[in-house]
Order: sequence, then structure tokens, then C-alpha cells
Amino acid sequence: ELRDALLASFGDRCLAGFKVVVSAGPTYEDIDPVRFIGNRSSGQMGFAVAAAAVAAGAEVTLVAGPVSLATPAGLHRRVDVRSAAQMHAAVLEAATHADVYIGAAAVGDYRPQEVSAQKLKKRDGGELVLHLDENPDILASLSAQTAHPFLVGFAAETHDVATYAQGKLRHKGLDMIAANQVGGGLGFEAADNALTLYWADGSVELPRVAKTELARQLIARVAERYRATRA
Amino acid sequence: ELRDALLASFGDRCLAGFKVVVSAGPTYEDIDPVRFIGNRSSGQMGFAVAAAAVAAGAEVTLVAGPVSLATPAGLHRRVDVRSAAQMHAAVLEAATHADVYIGAAAVGDYRPQEVSAQKLKKRDGGELVLHLDENPDILASLSAQTAHPFLVGFAAETHDVATYAQGKLRHKGLDMIAANQVGGGLGFEAADNALTLYWADGSVELPRVAKTELARQLIARVAERYRATRA
Repeated sequence: ELRDALLASFGDRCLAGFKVVVSAGPTYEDIDPVRFIGNRSSGQMGFAVAAAAVAAGAEVTLVAGPVSLATPAGLHRRVDVRSAAQMHAAVLEAATHADVYIGAAAVGDYRPQEVSAQKLKKRDGGELVLHLDENPDILASLSAQTAHPFLVGFAAETHDVATYAQGKLRHKGLDMIAANQVGGGLGFEAADNALTLYWADGSVELPRVAKTELARQLIARVAERYRATRA
Repeated sequence: ELRDALLASFGDRCLAGFKVVVSAGPTYEDIDPVRFIGNRSSGQMGFAVAAAAVAAGAEVTLVAGPVSLATPAGLHRRVDVRSAAQMHAAVLEAATHADVYIGAAAVGDYRPQEVSAQKLKKRDGGELVLHLDENPDILASLSAQTAHPFLVGFAAETHDVATYAQGKLRHKGLDMIAANQVGGGLGFEAADNALTLYWADGSVELPRVAKTELARQLIARVAERYRATRA
């Protein structure tokens, strides 16, 4: 098969012929027309991963939350979304027939149970109680499909990074997880980052480096693990 | 007095010799190191107001929430803040001895009662309940001071704009309020906007126009009302 032949010449074009879907950025969950619950993801890491996948020869669809980043050159398609539910729908539509899905977005875990159509008025002196429901889990939804793409998740944690990442790998049935510590100048708002990649029977540390180079290394590892388990 | 002479030559330099403080942008209230409650303000209107005040000859301090906007040329000082509490402190420090305070920021009304030092973990299948406390009101704090600057508030509303704006003018003891309807392509995310200005015994409509021109018109009206009531 063409793909196997291409994989055999594993190198700079290590994802040539692959359909890859990448999600990036935060999601915003509206409380009312003005207020929302967001998170600190800048989208830089996900956009760098999408660009690295393009450079590796893949046909790349990028599903982006609300970010202010330029579309990487050579992208097959960019889909802009706002909420976790919108991202869930867009990724499932794009990734069901893809070879690889890399979930680099920081998808909001919770959304308000009710979204007010009008701006909520301040009630003097009172507290406000927001009831939130869990959002659908994109990786778990893909993992539950009989034939699903090679699944790569991200785990951005402030503590016990390895424990949470390895738990998430098993729990969600992922092929690989990229774990990083947030805070201390690393992670969401920094131009560089460090990752530890875990898979079922191995791991590798990718030391601190610019996100563009880190993305290139991640893509090379994804191609390598894909070849080891799927080809 | 110098200021009266300058005001008498009311025109392009209508705020020459004035100390003006402008707040702009949203505030973000952290839930944990990753998640926050934000709002849709882009900061464009506030930055345009600060630039218009500089053009009118004022010494301008701009207190900005988290935005990605370039600092207007000729600004006296820019103070960057994240939360409503930080904005409250920065504005009170800067505005106490100012002549005019224009509150164009969309300050978050509520903040989480507790900010988690660690990223909150998702609890499977459960709902999450967030308890929020009211933030201190910047305009009300300034208005309560014996000698306070000329106070201009903004009211961005989705409905009953005039009613809410005039109520806020009286309730907070403001000198002027700039009211606008959000939604329908106007307001937070648009490059142009329309405002209705209210003061104790009058009002004026400023029809839809680019935010930079709207800001110039607002500054001219502020100078006019200042002259009518304070000079």
C-alpha cells in the first residue's frame, strides 16, 4: 500500500498521504450575550502542530476555538468554533475518516446549564450561583467508534502531571498523550514549552524548546508510533 | 484660571491641561490557573476614547484589562490589569486626582468566591456549582469620594438600554453615561458603534460611525458638559 511505502521512507515527509485533524485554542462557554467561561489557551501549540503536520506532508484540517492567530500556510481546511459543543461537532465531522486526530485544544469541561438570552443584571449585594453541566468529551467520543483515527490527547496540568496524563491515556483509550506542566512560565502563554509523550508501553521527554520545533518533534513521534501500531 | 481660558477656546484641544483616566477592555476573573470568567469587550472603544483624549490635549492614563491592542501614541501611562479587583485598585490610584474618569471597561460584576490554586479536576457525570461574589464597583467608589473627577460611565445592554442607562446614571451618581445596544453587529466585536449620551437633564444621540470618530465626539461632549457643570 502507498501509505506503507511512504512510511517506510520515514523522514521529513513522515505524514505524506495522511489525513490529519488538529484542534487548537480554547473554547468559550457563554453565560449570557456578554459573559463567558474561557481558558488561557492561546492556540499557539495547536497551530504549530497543524503547521508541522502540513510540513510533514499531511492533508490537515484545523478546528480552532476563539484565537487571534493566522492560518498556517498549506492547510487543507480551517473551521472556527466558539463552544465545546461546536468543537465536538466539527471535530467528529472532520476526524471520523481521518488517519490521525491530535486534540491540542483546551476544551472547556463545563458549560452553564442555561444560557441567558439577555445580559444578566447584577443583583445588589447578593451572590450569584452558576450551575454547570459537563461537556461531551471529544476524544472519548472518537475512541468509542469502532474504526477511529490514531488519537493523540494533551494533558495540561498544574500538578501530578505524569499520573493524570497516564490515567487519561488509559481511561480515554488514546494512542498517545502529550503532557505538560502549566505555570512557571511554561505552557499556555509562553512561546516555548516542554512535553512528555506517553503511550501504552513507553514514553519520551521532549525538553523545553520553541513550540514550532516541539510540534515538529511531536509529529515525528506520532508518525513513528502510528507505524509501530497501525501500519 | 488657565483651564477656564482653555475651555473658552473650546475646539480641537478641548481637554488641554486636563488629567483624564480611561479604563478599557474586559476583566478576567480566575476560577483556577487555567479557567476564568471573561466578557466580550475587545477594548477598542476604550482605546479609541483614550486616543481621542490625547488628541484633545489631555494627560491620559489608560487602565487596560487583558486585550491585544497597541498603546495609543502620546499616552501618559498605561497600566495593564487582569481582574476587576486589580482594575478597581489601579483606577482609584490614578483617578482620585484626575479631572475626568471615563469607565469604558467591561468590568466583571462577579468573581469566584474561591480561586483554586490547582486546576480543578472534572468529576465524571456531575454538575459543577460555582459560587460568585460581587466585585467592588469602580464608579460607585469614585462617586462616594467628596471631591471626585467628572465621571463618565458606559452601559452596554442587550435590551431596555435607555431605562438601564438612566437608572445607572442616577444610582451611581455619574455626570454622564454612554449607552449602547450590544448584539446585531453593534458593540463589542464591531469596528463601529452608536451611543446615546445621558446626563442629569439632557441627552444626545451619536449615530453609528467608526469607533475612532465616535470617541472624538464623546470627548467633545465630555468637555462641553464639564464646562457646563464644573468650570
